[in-house]
Amino acid sequence: MTRKFKKRASKIGLPPGTLVHVGEKKTEQTRIEIIDYDDKQLRQKEAQTIEECFPFRDEPTVTWINIDGLHEVDLIEKLGVHFNIHSLVLEDILHTGQRPKAEDFGKYLYVVLRSLSYSEKQDEILEEQISMLIGSNYVISFQEQAGDEFNPVRERIKSGRFQMNKRKADFVAYSLIDAVVDNYFLILEKMGEKIESLEDELLDHPTPATLQTIHRLKRKLITLRKSAWPLREVIGGLERGESSLFQKSTTIYLKDVYDHSIRVIDTIETYRDMVSGMLDMYLSNLSNKLNEVMKVLTIISTIFIPLTFLAGIYGMNFDFMPELRWRWGYFAIWGIMIMIGVGMIFYFRKKKWL
Amino acid sequence: MTRKFKKRASKIGLPPGTLVHVGEKKTEQTRIEIIDYDDKQLRQKEAQTIEECFPFRDEPTVTWINIDGLHEVDLIEKLGVHFNIHSLVLEDILHTGQRPKAEDFGKYLYVVLRSLSYSEKQDEILEEQISMLIGSNYVISFQEQAGDEFNPVRERIKSGRFQMNKRKADFVAYSLIDAVVDNYFLILEKMGEKIESLEDELLDHPTPATLQTIHRLKRKLITLRKSAWPLREVIGGLERGESSLFQKSTTIYLKDVYDHSIRVIDTIETYRDMVSGMLDMYLSNLSNKLNEVMKVLTIISTIFIPLTFLAGIYGMNFDFMPELRWRWGYFAIWGIMIMIGVGMIFYFRKKKWL
Amino acid sequence: MTRKFKKRASKIGLPPGTLVHVGEKKTEQTRIEIIDYDDKQLRQKEAQTIEECFPFRDEPTVTWINIDGLHEVDLIEKLGVHFNIHSLVLEDILHTGQRPKAEDFGKYLYVVLRSLSYSEKQDEILEEQISMLIGSNYVISFQEQAGDEFNPVRERIKSGRFQMNKRKADFVAYSLIDAVVDNYFLILEKMGEKIESLEDELLDHPTPATLQTIHRLKRKLITLRKSAWPLREVIGGLERGESSLFQKSTTIYLKDVYDHSIRVIDTIETYRDMVSGMLDMYLSNLSNKLNEVMKVLTIISTIFIPLTFLAGIYGMNFDFMPELRWRWGYFAIWGIMIMIGVGMIFYFRKKKWL
Amino acid sequence: MTRKFKKRASKIGLPPGTLVHVGEKKTEQTRIEIIDYDDKQLRQKEAQTIEECFPFRDEPTVTWINIDGLHEVDLIEKLGVHFNIHSLVLEDILHTGQRPKAEDFGKYLYVVLRSLSYSEKQDEILEEQISMLIGSNYVISFQEQAGDEFNPVRERIKSGRFQMNKRKADFVAYSLIDAVVDNYFLILEKMGEKIESLEDELLDHPTPATLQTIHRLKRKLITLRKSAWPLREVIGGLERGESSLFQKSTTIYLKDVYDHSIRVIDTIETYRDMVSGMLDMYLSNLSNKLNEVMKVLTIISTIFIPLTFLAGIYGMNFDFMPELRWRWGYFAIWGIMIMIGVGMIFYFRKKKWL
Amino acid sequence: MTRKFKKRASKIGLPPGTLVHVGEKKTEQTRIEIIDYDDKQLRQKEAQTIEECFPFRDEPTVTWINIDGLHEVDLIEKLGVHFNIHSLVLEDILHTGQRPKAEDFGKYLYVVLRSLSYSEKQDEILEEQISMLIGSNYVISFQEQAGDEFNPVRERIKSGRFQMNKRKADFVAYSLIDAVVDNYFLILEKMGEKIESLEDELLDHPTPATLQTIHRLKRKLITLRKSAWPLREVIGGLERGESSLFQKSTTIYLKDVYDHSIRVIDTIETYRDMVSGMLDMYLSNLSNKLNEVMKVLTIISTIFIPLTFLAGIYGMNFDFMPELRWRWGYFAIWGIMIMIGVGMIFYFRKKKWL
Repeated sequence: MTRKFKKRASKIGLPPGTLVHVGEKKTEQTRIEIIDYDDKQLRQKEAQTIEECFPFRDEPTVTWINIDGLHEVDLIEKLGVHFNIHSLVLEDILHTGQRPKAEDFGKYLYVVLRSLSYSEKQDEILEEQISMLIGSNYVISFQEQAGDEFNPVRERIKSGRFQMNKRKADFVAYSLIDAVVDNYFLILEKMGEKIESLEDELLDHPTPATLQTIHRLKRKLITLRKSAWPLREVIGGLERGESSLFQKSTTIYLKDVYDHSIRVIDTIETYRDMVSGMLDMYLSNLSNKLNEVMKVLTIISTIFIPLTFLAGIYGMNFDFMPELRWRWGYFAIWGIMIMIGVGMIFYFRKKKWL
Repeated sequence: MTRKFKKRASKIGLPPGTLVHVGEKKTEQTRIEIIDYDDKQLRQKEAQTIEECFPFRDEPTVTWINIDGLHEVDLIEKLGVHFNIHSLVLEDILHTGQRPKAEDFGKYLYVVLRSLSYSEKQDEILEEQISMLIGSNYVISFQEQAGDEFNPVRERIKSGRFQMNKRKADFVAYSLIDAVVDNYFLILEKMGEKIESLEDELLDHPTPATLQTIHRLKRKLITLRKSAWPLREVIGGLERGESSLFQKSTTIYLKDVYDHSIRVIDTIETYRDMVSGMLDMYLSNLSNKLNEVMKVLTIISTIFIPLTFLAGIYGMNFDFMPELRWRWGYFAIWGIMIMIGVGMIFYFRKKKWL
Repeated sequence: MTRKFKKRASKIGLPPGTLVHVGEKKTEQTRIEIIDYDDKQLRQKEAQTIEECFPFRDEPTVTWINIDGLHEVDLIEKLGVHFNIHSLVLEDILHTGQRPKAEDFGKYLYVVLRSLSYSEKQDEILEEQISMLIGSNYVISFQEQAGDEFNPVRERIKSGRFQMNKRKADFVAYSLIDAVVDNYFLILEKMGEKIESLEDELLDHPTPATLQTIHRLKRKLITLRKSAWPLREVIGGLERGESSLFQKSTTIYLKDVYDHSIRVIDTIETYRDMVSGMLDMYLSNLSNKLNEVMKVLTIISTIFIPLTFLAGIYGMNFDFMPELRWRWGYFAIWGIMIMIGVGMIFYFRKKKWL
Repeated sequence: MTRKFKKRASKIGLPPGTLVHVGEKKTEQTRIEIIDYDDKQLRQKEAQTIEECFPFRDEPTVTWINIDGLHEVDLIEKLGVHFNIHSLVLEDILHTGQRPKAEDFGKYLYVVLRSLSYSEKQDEILEEQISMLIGSNYVISFQEQAGDEFNPVRERIKSGRFQMNKRKADFVAYSLIDAVVDNYFLILEKMGEKIESLEDELLDHPTPATLQTIHRLKRKLITLRKSAWPLREVIGGLERGESSLFQKSTTIYLKDVYDHSIRVIDTIETYRDMVSGMLDMYLSNLSNKLNEVMKVLTIISTIFIPLTFLAGIYGMNFDFMPELRWRWGYFAIWGIMIMIGVGMIFYFRKKKWL
Repeated sequence: MTRKFKKRASKIGLPPGTLVHVGEKKTEQTRIEIIDYDDKQLRQKEAQTIEECFPFRDEPTVTWINIDGLHEVDLIEKLGVHFNIHSLVLEDILHTGQRPKAEDFGKYLYVVLRSLSYSEKQDEILEEQISMLIGSNYVISFQEQAGDEFNPVRERIKSGRFQMNKRKADFVAYSLIDAVVDNYFLILEKMGEKIESLEDELLDHPTPATLQTIHRLKRKLITLRKSAWPLREVIGGLERGESSLFQKSTTIYLKDVYDHSIRVIDTIETYRDMVSGMLDMYLSNLSNKLNEVMKVLTIISTIFIPLTFLAGIYGMNFDFMPELRWRWGYFAIWGIMIMIGVGMIFYFRKKKWL
């Protein structure tokens, strides 16, 4: 969280539209991939220079340009100039840490999403900014690093199944958005498993470490939520046909992703309810245990403190203590003590402490 | 919860509209039931093949096709093709775990609901997805397994009472929705009973198990809520006449179901308030008990610790301790001790601890 | 709460519009009262059969028919048929447990309200369903049992004061609604008194019973709230002139009742804030007391446990313990003990525990 | 709070528009003050009878009639009849306890506000109902008792500064509303001081009395809030030009008061956040202290209980206890005891309890 | 907080539009800076008298007048008269403590913002009121004291980069707003660092001081929030083109600042969630520790209290106590004691207390 702002802050004072890459450099080399198709043929290649992408702007075929790596600022600037992109948009593409949003510039649509993935090793949710420029015959997507989120889309286009070859650029855009949203379900699955195992732990043998885990889970849900709510807004806006770049037929598919995004949010909110329920459980358990501990202490003390007092009495060294001289004094005192002890136990039984 | 996502996740990467059954296989054999009527006659039969349903598409009579079991994907695909249903709709029918929703495709309306039932044995709320395709002269309903929710509707059509034979397909759809909502009241009744018995338990003899029960109840209410809120939206949308497939006269009946769905939500929210009130009660009770336990411990300790000290004093073995030689020393010390004890008791009385 | 749903559930499966009385039978005999007036004359009579009411439908005079008791279903059915009331409306009239609502059927308006009264004996808020059918020249009101809520309205009509005789049916309807809302103020007054006495109790001598009372009060407020919020909506809808059956001049009066309903809700919300503040107070008090108890225990223990240890030392029976032989050993040990005790007291003073 | 409803309840059953003074009689004698001006001259007088006010209705000059004291019902009724005021309005004027509201009757506007003042003596916020009737050339204001809230307005008119003499009746009304809102800032200032001193107390030496003060403050904020929110709505409505009686030029001034009312609410909400933060602080402090107390008890007990046990061992009177015969037994036991004690202290150090 | 109202209160009673400086005097001398440019040239100077600014009103060049220091009331009054500013606006400029708002007066737009900065020394967030008057060819900005927030804007204009010289007054206004919003990110970065170090402290070694820090952080977030929410509204209003003074091309830039303001609010809300999560953590930690302390006490007491009792028994001085005479009595009693102790330890192991 903080890291993001440190970066952000370093940019304060620069005029708007200044192109600086703000964010971690997550990949060594920028990778440019071009997939170009119409209903007759399909071309796929890895471009060495950004200039190789330029001719596709004016061709009628559908072109998807995917760029992994944001640190080569001039590369993105050139692309922006050629495709006539507003400098503020280019700034946002480079400045990772944007909130999901969609902005319509007439000729093209700018969409930012946050792609989430779960790092098993760090036990953390990793965020990545996905930017998309959607024109009438092209989609340009920007990722912070090479990832496999978009592989299914590649497969689908290449395999020619599902009539992808007849679809326009907006359908490619939809497919990318769908791929991003699908990843949220993977994260939620992970979270669900964690919640379940945590609940078992909570019922079985809660420890202070359980509390830490609950706390961490809560933090993760806050992060998730911060990405998921604006995501829904963005998709909802596109689905309601706010941009003319999306055709009516694609809108039905967007509605489907929109439903998914609502389910993501529903599940996040349910998880939040569950996690805060678990915190309550944990604290109630603590109170229960404290009560139990205190009962044991009280029972033991309440039985033995008076008896010890009695023993103390007859340990006194007064010259004249008639009971000490009695033949059966010792056994009498044992009798009295046992009576007191048993009486106490009955009293605790009645109070339901035992 | 989690199980659902595991399933969901397994489908990630497939193109939209791919037909795969996602969910538990709850029944062995798919059952297809056809009820067909107009104001003159009524036909009811169990179809062996899905093709038997096809002729009804073009007949003017009202046809209700009910399909129990979703695992035979090709059967549903055939039906979809014949009735000209969008592939995304077929996908949603097969993919149990949808959020209640209604989608209007002009020629037909797609409605998903979640039917709830209470399993006494598992002490759990079981969810089932009910999908409905509503055309101008047919209703096709899909259930995950054969159930008796729709029996009242069958009875009503067969008995000919209530002028069912003069009603159109939209009224059949309304009747099915009504049947689903009615089941929510059964669940709420069960919950209400549980809450009542829990409150008695809470006043009578709360145990840590009570806390578990409260927690489980809370979880069930979260589940219920997640189904009930979108249910209300769906019915509200239909009632406001957003679809032309529902006639004006049926809308009055939908308003009635809508009122029921509001009452369901009202009651769920009230139950939530009650259950969280019970949690407060439980915790306050714990605190009360802890206070009581601590008072007992403190009273006993505060009375006997000083007395034991006194007894300890006169148990010392100093050669020269004048009191030990006194004739009435022993009785004097008893007197002092009783005075201290009684004084303490008066002090506690004054402090209202006794 | 639960009882209501048990009843409701028993009706599940019946076709919509089936007339069954759902609810407690609260009165033995149905009472039908007719008040009929125009600006010249006034007739009031108790009808023996429902048929006596029928002629009034077509007379130009204003007629108010009040029916106490809902168990005679056929009586209400006959009335419904004659006045041409939708069967779903008749069902709702008989089915007590409706949420307050207003439904406009063009020729008549159907209004359901919940009348509350406070039962001193049971210390509970009793609910009753009041249904009203409002036509252009008649008002038919249905109560579960004979009550005195409407007496002021009767008086007002009979006395001829306030120009009641010139007013139309909508003004009668307004008067009845006003009477119902006025009763809420009586309940709130009772609640206010309870809250005040509870606050005194809380400051004076809170007991675990206080907690129970707070809890019960909270429950009552939940009930109240559930009735009051939809009440406001209903009156607000009427006041905004959504129904043409209410004349402009009556709307000013409805605005007045609407203000009252807002004040009712305002007060309920304020009470809720107060009651949850009291719960906080109670729990903080408990914590305060626990702290005080623990301090007493700790002070006593911390002073006497070391002293008892010292006394124990000189109660040992070692052959060679030089101090025991000293002439002033006994007095020296007393001195040391007193010093330790006084030192401890100073320490506690410094820590502000004393 | 309760008192208000007791009064209110006493009126239940009376027909709407019945004029009864509901509320405390706060002044002995009704005072009627008339200020009348146009851009040439200014007249100010105290009227003996209400009839003196009547001629001003039809004069073109701006007239402000201020009436202190509401118990002379017939006086207000006469005024109402002459100025042609709706009986429900007169009822609301007399019935103190109204919620702030503005009602437009075309020829005149009826505004109710609640004026707050802080009573140092009772440490309470006193409420008073201010009603205003605003016509095209007159403002009639009603107060429960003579107060000095309106003095600045009087001054302003009399001094002739600020072009008051050229302003119309709506500007007088604005000035009165402004004066009422200004008083809220005085209350908030008092509250702010209290909160500050309470925070110091909380950091310095919190006592159970602090808890009481927090609770009382919370109660006061609930009261404030209940008045301030509807106040904002009222002024917002006037500012948005919902009434034609307010001129465009005055609207700019109303926007200013509207901003003030938003700031009042902002501050109330901030105070609420602060006060509930203080409650959390107080309770956390309690827990901290309990922990500290328990540590002291545990340390003392854990050190001395085992030692006392050891001393008890060698206080036993067995005939054959070899250690008792040893030459250095007594000193050895001292050594062991000191070692145990020091060991314990190290253990507590390690656990960071010391 | 309070200080603000004390000031405010001192102004109560004055007529609206009275010009009084309300707020701390933060600077000794008022500084007036004029920057004037068109696409050909740029003039910058420090004005000695306010009259030097007047000619710029009617020149076609873009003029930015920045005034630091608000205590010279007549200076601001003169400016207001010359530029024809409404007296209520001048009042608000002088009266620091305004809520962020934008008011459109047709010829000019009045915008108030709150600029925040973090004072390392006082560990507090300092607020300053920034007022702006935006005309078609001028921007006049008012600061309470000279600050460096606007330096980047000065630089940008002077350097001629970013085509500033071709931009109109609305772009200068946008740049100033952007500079203010950028400062919020600096504050948030500080807060983020604090939260992170606090979390480490919380996991490592929480102390009562940690609680104080959490509390202070919470207070700061309340302050931040109070400034940030209305800021968003203001910018949102400008961005939606509510004022005709902002050109279409500048609106895209305003949308950018608007996004920033949403991110500010998002982050504040996330921080609030985090801080209240930390409070929960702290309190749970306290409970955990109390439990641990109590367990130690209970274990020690429960083991040694019964043993001490036994030792007390054989310290009694009865004449006839057969065990005392036994040869191996002493060792037997040791054996019994060790058995009891070990048994206790096993019991605690089973209970998982050890």
